[in-house]
Amino acid sequence: MKLNCDLGESFGAWSMPVEKDIMSEIDQANIACGFHAGDPLVMKAALDIAKAHGVSVGAHPSYPDLQGFGRRSMAMQANELSACIQYQVSALVGMAAIVGTQVSYVKPHGALYNDMMKNKEIRQTVMKSVAAMCQGKLPLMVQATSQHQGIADEAKHHGVSLLFEAFSDRRYTDEGYLQSRQIDGAVLSPQEALVQAKQLIEQGTVTTASGATLSIQADSLCVHGDTAGAVEIARQIRAYL
Amino acid sequence: MKLNCDLGESFGAWSMPVEKDIMSEIDQANIACGFHAGDPLVMKAALDIAKAHGVSVGAHPSYPDLQGFGRRSMAMQANELSACIQYQVSALVGMAAIVGTQVSYVKPHGALYNDMMKNKEIRQTVMKSVAAMCQGKLPLMVQATSQHQGIADEAKHHGVSLLFEAFSDRRYTDEGYLQSRQIDGAVLSPQEALVQAKQLIEQGTVTTASGATLSIQADSLCVHGDTAGAVEIARQIRAYL
Amino acid sequence: MKLNCDLGESFGAWSMPVEKDIMSEIDQANIACGFHAGDPLVMKAALDIAKAHGVSVGAHPSYPDLQGFGRRSMAMQANELSACIQYQVSALVGMAAIVGTQVSYVKPHGALYNDMMKNKEIRQTVMKSVAAMCQGKLPLMVQATSQHQGIADEAKHHGVSLLFEAFSDRRYTDEGYLQSRQIDGAVLSPQEALVQAKQLIEQGTVTTASGATLSIQADSLCVHGDTAGAVEIARQIRAYL
Amino acid sequence: MKLNCDLGESFGAWSMPVEKDIMSEIDQANIACGFHAGDPLVMKAALDIAKAHGVSVGAHPSYPDLQGFGRRSMAMQANELSACIQYQVSALVGMAAIVGTQVSYVKPHGALYNDMMKNKEIRQTVMKSVAAMCQGKLPLMVQATSQHQGIADEAKHHGVSLLFEAFSDRRYTDEGYLQSRQIDGAVLSPQEALVQAKQLIEQGTVTTASGATLSIQADSLCVHGDTAGAVEIARQIRAYL
Repeated sequence: MKLNCDLGESFGAWSMPVEKDIMSEIDQANIACGFHAGDPLVMKAALDIAKAHGVSVGAHPSYPDLQGFGRRSMAMQANELSACIQYQVSALVGMAAIVGTQVSYVKPHGALYNDMMKNKEIRQTVMKSVAAMCQGKLPLMVQATSQHQGIADEAKHHGVSLLFEAFSDRRYTDEGYLQSRQIDGAVLSPQEALVQAKQLIEQGTVTTASGATLSIQADSLCVHGDTAGAVEIARQIRAYL
Repeated sequence: MKLNCDLGESFGAWSMPVEKDIMSEIDQANIACGFHAGDPLVMKAALDIAKAHGVSVGAHPSYPDLQGFGRRSMAMQANELSACIQYQVSALVGMAAIVGTQVSYVKPHGALYNDMMKNKEIRQTVMKSVAAMCQGKLPLMVQATSQHQGIADEAKHHGVSLLFEAFSDRRYTDEGYLQSRQIDGAVLSPQEALVQAKQLIEQGTVTTASGATLSIQADSLCVHGDTAGAVEIARQIRAYL
Repeated sequence: MKLNCDLGESFGAWSMPVEKDIMSEIDQANIACGFHAGDPLVMKAALDIAKAHGVSVGAHPSYPDLQGFGRRSMAMQANELSACIQYQVSALVGMAAIVGTQVSYVKPHGALYNDMMKNKEIRQTVMKSVAAMCQGKLPLMVQATSQHQGIADEAKHHGVSLLFEAFSDRRYTDEGYLQSRQIDGAVLSPQEALVQAKQLIEQGTVTTASGATLSIQADSLCVHGDTAGAVEIARQIRAYL
Repeated sequence: MKLNCDLGESFGAWSMPVEKDIMSEIDQANIACGFHAGDPLVMKAALDIAKAHGVSVGAHPSYPDLQGFGRRSMAMQANELSACIQYQVSALVGMAAIVGTQVSYVKPHGALYNDMMKNKEIRQTVMKSVAAMCQGKLPLMVQATSQHQGIADEAKHHGVSLLFEAFSDRRYTDEGYLQSRQIDGAVLSPQEALVQAKQLIEQGTVTTASGATLSIQADSLCVHGDTAGAVEIARQIRAYL
């Protein structure tokens, strides 16, 4: 089980905190590509730090929405979205080579990630866009859900391999989705997150909001770098692993 | 002697005219990379057309200035400018591969091109930025001037090879620079442009505004695609070649 | 019955054609405010021309989406959307005063206009945003539909007055909406447009795609300025009026 | 003597720290207008806080450069720069009215501020741009220097009134400019800043880097809100006043 974290999400004069501290605790850094965060200089710095820590790099493309930090769905045509994703991933691929490292996978960001999970047409566009790059060698990171097999079949059809990620610090619904942040208890406490992480690692299951046990097969756990507490959780999961 | 032309300079709903017509007349297309023109979809379309016509592709990076079309100098730090150039070139390199073609050289756009020619520090930043990419295999296209050897020495020092371009449709000063567009007669008529092109091709010289003869050793002639007349000039130079 | 047209939709080096020619044929110019088109210089030029022709000015705010020309829906929070609209309208209001004219109404652009017509929550946000500006004196231009009274009630509740517009060159459905452009015949020919305009003006009705007659009470007819044919239609409707 | 501070410099998901704490210590808030910082929602929030604290609002327009935070000079034409400034100020003027407050002056930001002080042509463009707005009632805030009278004459000529500001926490040169931040000691310690503030307030002078005494007639002292120490300095200067 790997740990992954969104990084390189500063922009110009604005910094996202704690980024450096988390780098030593994770295996995979999802680096912003300039459309929701991460100007070229920030990308380069993130790549440098990832390389220094031997952390694997994922491209983290987004809808083009700096003000909304990529958290707002945008109704893009399939060809627009495809070019938008490929531009961002290409930019990071090239800059990674300059820094002396490489992009190993693609994980869409924010609203694009959510839309990809919910909407088959968007998911297909993302899969085809990633499959068309780098000789189809870049896996796509998606959310591990109970619809695992269906998504795996789609990916096989489009010629892209998958990495599945689970969330240690978010409460799951019985359908295998994340509870909305609006609901009390949707975001787990550090202690609860550690318990959920252990259960995911040892048993490949989560206990849902209703108390049911759900099978979640994940390759990677997503941790967050934007609070000091999150770094501590990552550290403890890491120690446990 | 090759012919090169700036292309892919539409953006979103806005089109630059005549682009398709010129493609059959040129050898090298300088394709915008999104910072002064050319959104990802426009870039892909330009790459497709270049490939279809067997035209060589150059990355055409710019200062980040969509409203100013990259024509306004910006006081960027060397590390900012370097990352800015590398991001753009990387994006085009990756998208070219998706389309099934490749980037063969880099030609800075607009104010960045002019600043590079006038300012040694900026030129050094551009050279180092390009040399650090694609195993240093991308030549940098610069203006052929009477300071030819000095720039060639700089390029050698920084590990980048050069392509020199001359302008068929602009009047030269005795110092080997282009006359300001503000000056009457600075932009040549189609007939004059054809004469100047022939002289550059046959004799490697231009006749300057004062009537002097200046040696200009160029690998490529820059033509413009934004007027119907320009296409006709390109066609005639091409026929002549 | 007035004629209105979207204007000021150039950006930087990119021009939308025909803009000047249409100005002498219309009563109301919907001027872009910088978020889908119209940089500050373009806005000023459009205001100047509107003033010179004695044309009334409407603010034409959009989702923040230059690449998509405001044609892509964005999932903005109500407070984000409200500030976004008010920023754009304020900018145009101030610049109109500098030029010596004034903003007389607000007409949302593109996807925001469509979303406003279809989605009551978004419509409410738009109404409240406009009502809060300029002492509530700016009317909001909306599409004249068969749900006329419902929207009028909402507007009254939120303290904004309305201007209703109809479309001369688009086929209507029996529900009073515009047929999708994807459908053959959805965009009327110049001859058909003139017939529909006359019917709207004389009888306050349209003949729908199915042949039914629908009552459409409009204050203004929207014409388009982006084709030479459209200018001719505007001229003929104008002559008829 | 007033205290002024740059505020509203967050953008989207990115926050500038300490902003709220400083608001109770100052008289004048220079609020970003969206081109270097301050999206519409951030502007509205800053206006709300300023109103709540009874703080006077200044528009803080910038070169259009979000990534560079307005700190990079851009070679804009006079008409481009003028429209750019007027757009930003207009947006803030309108939003201030919505919030129930008003814009009382204009203070250019960052590189535009520095360029305005150094370059007479740019200063003239700024002065004319501000004079053309709001019936010429908005004063322009400039740096108090030993060339006081020359700038006052220019302003009078262009029909704009001036507010002069001095800096409590920066070392002055004998010419009345600020020492470059690159030079050791250019940024004063909190203790030194308090001493310099008192001298500016009591005697209208500063002691320069060389030990000379320079007359600096200021209407307002600029303080910074981006460090906790700065808030404390503002508090002490305020207490002293």
